[in-house]
Amino acid sequence: MTPFMAEMIGTMLLILLGDGVVANVLLNDTKGNNGGLIAITTAWGLAVYVGVVVAGPYSGAHLNPAVTIGLAIAGKFAWALVPGYIIAQMLGAFMGAFLVWLMYYDHFQRTNAPGSILAVFCTGPAIRNYVSNIVSEVIGAFVLVFTVFYISGAQITPSKTPIGLGSVGALPVALLVWVIGLSLGGTTGYAINPARDLGPRIVHFLVPIKNKGTSDWAYAWIPVIGPIAGAALAAILYLNLHV
Amino acid sequence: MTPFMAEMIGTMLLILLGDGVVANVLLNDTKGNNGGLIAITTAWGLAVYVGVVVAGPYSGAHLNPAVTIGLAIAGKFAWALVPGYIIAQMLGAFMGAFLVWLMYYDHFQRTNAPGSILAVFCTGPAIRNYVSNIVSEVIGAFVLVFTVFYISGAQITPSKTPIGLGSVGALPVALLVWVIGLSLGGTTGYAINPARDLGPRIVHFLVPIKNKGTSDWAYAWIPVIGPIAGAALAAILYLNLHV
Amino acid sequence: MTPFMAEMIGTMLLILLGDGVVANVLLNDTKGNNGGLIAITTAWGLAVYVGVVVAGPYSGAHLNPAVTIGLAIAGKFAWALVPGYIIAQMLGAFMGAFLVWLMYYDHFQRTNAPGSILAVFCTGPAIRNYVSNIVSEVIGAFVLVFTVFYISGAQITPSKTPIGLGSVGALPVALLVWVIGLSLGGTTGYAINPARDLGPRIVHFLVPIKNKGTSDWAYAWIPVIGPIAGAALAAILYLNLHV
Amino acid sequence: MTPFMAEMIGTMLLILLGDGVVANVLLNDTKGNNGGLIAITTAWGLAVYVGVVVAGPYSGAHLNPAVTIGLAIAGKFAWALVPGYIIAQMLGAFMGAFLVWLMYYDHFQRTNAPGSILAVFCTGPAIRNYVSNIVSEVIGAFVLVFTVFYISGAQITPSKTPIGLGSVGALPVALLVWVIGLSLGGTTGYAINPARDLGPRIVHFLVPIKNKGTSDWAYAWIPVIGPIAGAALAAILYLNLHV
Repeated sequence: MTPFMAEMIGTMLLILLGDGVVANVLLNDTKGNNGGLIAITTAWGLAVYVGVVVAGPYSGAHLNPAVTIGLAIAGKFAWALVPGYIIAQMLGAFMGAFLVWLMYYDHFQRTNAPGSILAVFCTGPAIRNYVSNIVSEVIGAFVLVFTVFYISGAQITPSKTPIGLGSVGALPVALLVWVIGLSLGGTTGYAINPARDLGPRIVHFLVPIKNKGTSDWAYAWIPVIGPIAGAALAAILYLNLHV
Repeated sequence: MTPFMAEMIGTMLLILLGDGVVANVLLNDTKGNNGGLIAITTAWGLAVYVGVVVAGPYSGAHLNPAVTIGLAIAGKFAWALVPGYIIAQMLGAFMGAFLVWLMYYDHFQRTNAPGSILAVFCTGPAIRNYVSNIVSEVIGAFVLVFTVFYISGAQITPSKTPIGLGSVGALPVALLVWVIGLSLGGTTGYAINPARDLGPRIVHFLVPIKNKGTSDWAYAWIPVIGPIAGAALAAILYLNLHV
Repeated sequence: MTPFMAEMIGTMLLILLGDGVVANVLLNDTKGNNGGLIAITTAWGLAVYVGVVVAGPYSGAHLNPAVTIGLAIAGKFAWALVPGYIIAQMLGAFMGAFLVWLMYYDHFQRTNAPGSILAVFCTGPAIRNYVSNIVSEVIGAFVLVFTVFYISGAQITPSKTPIGLGSVGALPVALLVWVIGLSLGGTTGYAINPARDLGPRIVHFLVPIKNKGTSDWAYAWIPVIGPIAGAALAAILYLNLHV
Repeated sequence: MTPFMAEMIGTMLLILLGDGVVANVLLNDTKGNNGGLIAITTAWGLAVYVGVVVAGPYSGAHLNPAVTIGLAIAGKFAWALVPGYIIAQMLGAFMGAFLVWLMYYDHFQRTNAPGSILAVFCTGPAIRNYVSNIVSEVIGAFVLVFTVFYISGAQITPSKTPIGLGSVGALPVALLVWVIGLSLGGTTGYAINPARDLGPRIVHFLVPIKNKGTSDWAYAWIPVIGPIAGAALAAILYLNLHV
C-alpha cells in the first residue's frame, strides 16, 4: 500500500466512523438516537484509532492536513510530500462522508432539522463569533499537534514494521482525540482537521437530502485556517523547547 | 484446548456477554435498565475482548463466520478448516444465548414488549428496507474484517504462545468493535457476524418466554449474507492493495 | 509487603473505590448522583485495576475468595495459603467499606431510602428468587474465574518482578470485570466475590446511619456460595480442557 | 525541555483539558451541556494522560504538589527540587485555567449560575462540612499517591528515554484518576491536587465574567491542606510496608 493510498483509506475510515456516530446520535429513528456527549467523543477517538491502525505502518497516519503541515514545519516530514498527503486526506474524507450518507440514507430522509443534517457532515459554532470560534480551533489543534510530537515514533514516521502489540501502539492518539472532544469540543465541535470538515461539507453540498439546508460556507474557512494556525503554533513552540 | 473447542467457548462467551448487556438494558426491572448506547456498545466491544483472550492462542479467535471466510479468501486461513470453525461458532452462539435466557429468565417474564425480547437475542432494522439494511451490514463487516487484516498476528493465526502483556494484545479488536457499534450500529444494530445473529435467533425461536413474538425470519438472511459479502469485499480490497 | 498485607490493602482499595462509586451515584446530594450504569461499571472495573496494580507483584492480587479457591482447585495455588488469603480479603473489604461510610457520612445522613443505603455496601436481587439469583452469581463468577485462567502470569502468581509497562499488564482483569458488570450485573448486581459482599454487609450492620434498614441477612449466603460454586465450575472445566 | 518547563506545560495541559470538560458540561449553550459524570471523569483521567505523555520523560510528570511532596517524603524525589516543581505546577495551572476562560468566553457570558461558573475553575463541597470535606480530600489524595508508588518507573523519575509503546506507559495514572473521580469525587469534587484548585481559583478571582460570584476563599485551604496530608499519609504507609 502506498502512503497516498494509506492516507486516503485511513481518512476514509476516520470519517466513516466519525461522521457515522454523529448520524447515529442526531438523526431520527436510529438505534443510538440521543446517545450523548460520551458516545460521540468516544467514537471519534476510536475512529482515529482505526485509521491509525490501518494507515500507520504505510504513511505514518497523519489523516489530517494540520498534522502534516505541523510535522513539516517541525522538520519531521518532507515538504515535498505535503501536497500529495493533503489531496489523499481530502479524497478520503469525501469518500467517508459519502458512505455515511449512503448508509444512513433512510434516516436522513426522516430527519427534519437542517442543522442536525449538516452536523453529521461537518462542524459549526455553538455561538457564532468568528474571533472566538477561530480561537477555539487554534487551541484544539495546538493541543493535538503539540502532544503528537511527544507520542513517539510509529504513528508519525512511515515505517513498514507493524505497530507492535496487536496495534496497541495506536492507542495514544485515540486517547488524545477523545479528551480533546470532551474538553475542547464544546464551542465549535472540534474540527481540528481541515480535511475532516471540508471534505464532508462538500459531500453535504452535493448529495440530495430531503430537508437539507445550507452548507454554511460562510463558516467553512474557520475549520481550515484555525487548525493549520494551531498546528503551526505547536510546531514553533516545540522547536523552541527542543533545540 | 482444540481450535474447535476454542471457537465454541469463545463465541459462547461473546454472546453471553453481548446479548447479556442488551438484556440488562432492555428488559424490565433490571439494574441496568435504560443504560443507553454507551453501555451496550462498550459491553459488546469488551465481550469480543473476553472471547479473544480465551480463544486467541488456540484458534486465532475468529468467533465470526465472516471473519473466517474473509481470512480464507485473503489466503490467511485454510479453506478446509472453514466448515468446522463455522459449526463451532454457531454452537457457541447458541449456548451463549441460552445462558442469557436462563440468567435473565425472571426479567423476560416481566417484559411486555416482544420487540425488546427479540432484540436481546438478535438484530433487527431500525427502518425496514432490505436494500439499505444489507448495505449497512456490508459496510459494518467490511470495516471489521478490513481492519482486522491490519491488526497484527496473535488474534488471527492460531498459536500456542500466549498473547503477551496479560492479554493486552487482544485489545485492538475490542476497540474496533466498540466504534463499529457506536458509529455503524444505528441502522441495523450491527450484526456483522452471521453466528452472532442466527444462533441466538434460533434460541429465541425455541425457548418459552411469556410475551414472545415472532422471531422475524423474514429478516434473518440479511445478517447472514450482508456480513459475508462485506468480509469478501474487505479481502478483495486487501489483496489488491498488498500484492 | 507480605502477601497477606497485599491482599488486605488491595481488597481495601477495591471496595473503597467500588462501594465509593455506588455511594456517589445512589446517595442524595452527591456530585455524581444518578450517574448511571456506565459510571458504576466503569468504576468497579477500574477499582479492580487499582487493587491489582498495588497487590499484584506481592500476592498475585486475587482480592476475591472465589478466585483464590478456583486457582487452588485448578492446582495453580497452594491450599495451605487459602485461609490466610481469605481472611486478608475479608479484613480489607471491611476496611474499604468503613472508609466509604466515613467519607460519605453526610450523604448517608441525607438519604432516605434504606435500599439505596444498603446497595452502597453490598448486593441484592433485582427480583428475589433464590434459584435464579444463585444461577446469576454462578454464571458471573464462572466467567470471571474461567477467563482469569487465560490471562497470563503476573496477576495470578505472586512475583516480586513488577508488572511491566507502568502496570498496563493489570488492565485485562479490569476490562473483564467491566463487561461482567455491564452484561451480567442486571439481575443480582454481580457480587462474584464473597469478600466484596460479606465484608461490607457487616459494616452496614455495625455502623450508625440515620435511615438504615435491615442488612438483608436472608440473602447474604447467595453472594458467598454462588461465586464459590461458579469458580469451582470454572476450574473443573479448565482442568478438563487442558489436561 | 527543562523539568521546570515540563511541569509547567504538563500542568497547563492538565488544567486546560480538565477545567475544559467542566466548562463543556456546565456552561450554557455548549455542545456537551449536561454531559454527565462519565464525561467529566473520563476527561479528567485523560487530561492527566496527556500531561504525563508530554512531561513524563522530562520531569517525571508530577503535575501536582501533593505528588511531589509525597515522593519527597518517601525518599524518591530530592527535597531541593520541590519548590521549583510546585511553582511550575502553579504557573501551569494558572495558564490552563486562563485558556479555558478565553476559549469558553462567550459561554461564560451566557451562564447565569455563579456556582457553575466557579465550578469550571475549582472544586467545592457538595455538603459544606469542613471536617468531612478535608477527610474526603485526604482519602482521595491518599489513594492517588499510594497507588502511584506502585506504578513503576517512567512517570515518577525524570528520564530522557521516551515512555515506550507510543506512550501507552502513561495510561495507568490516567486510569487511576478516572476511578478516583467516579468513586471518590462525590463529596468535594476530588481536587486531590493543590495546584489544580488554587491556580484556577486565582484566575476566577482575576478575570471578568458577567455573572461571576465569590471565589469562595473560605474553602480554598481545604484542597491545599487535604491533598498534602493524604500524600504524606501515603508516603508514611508506603515506607512502613517497604523497609
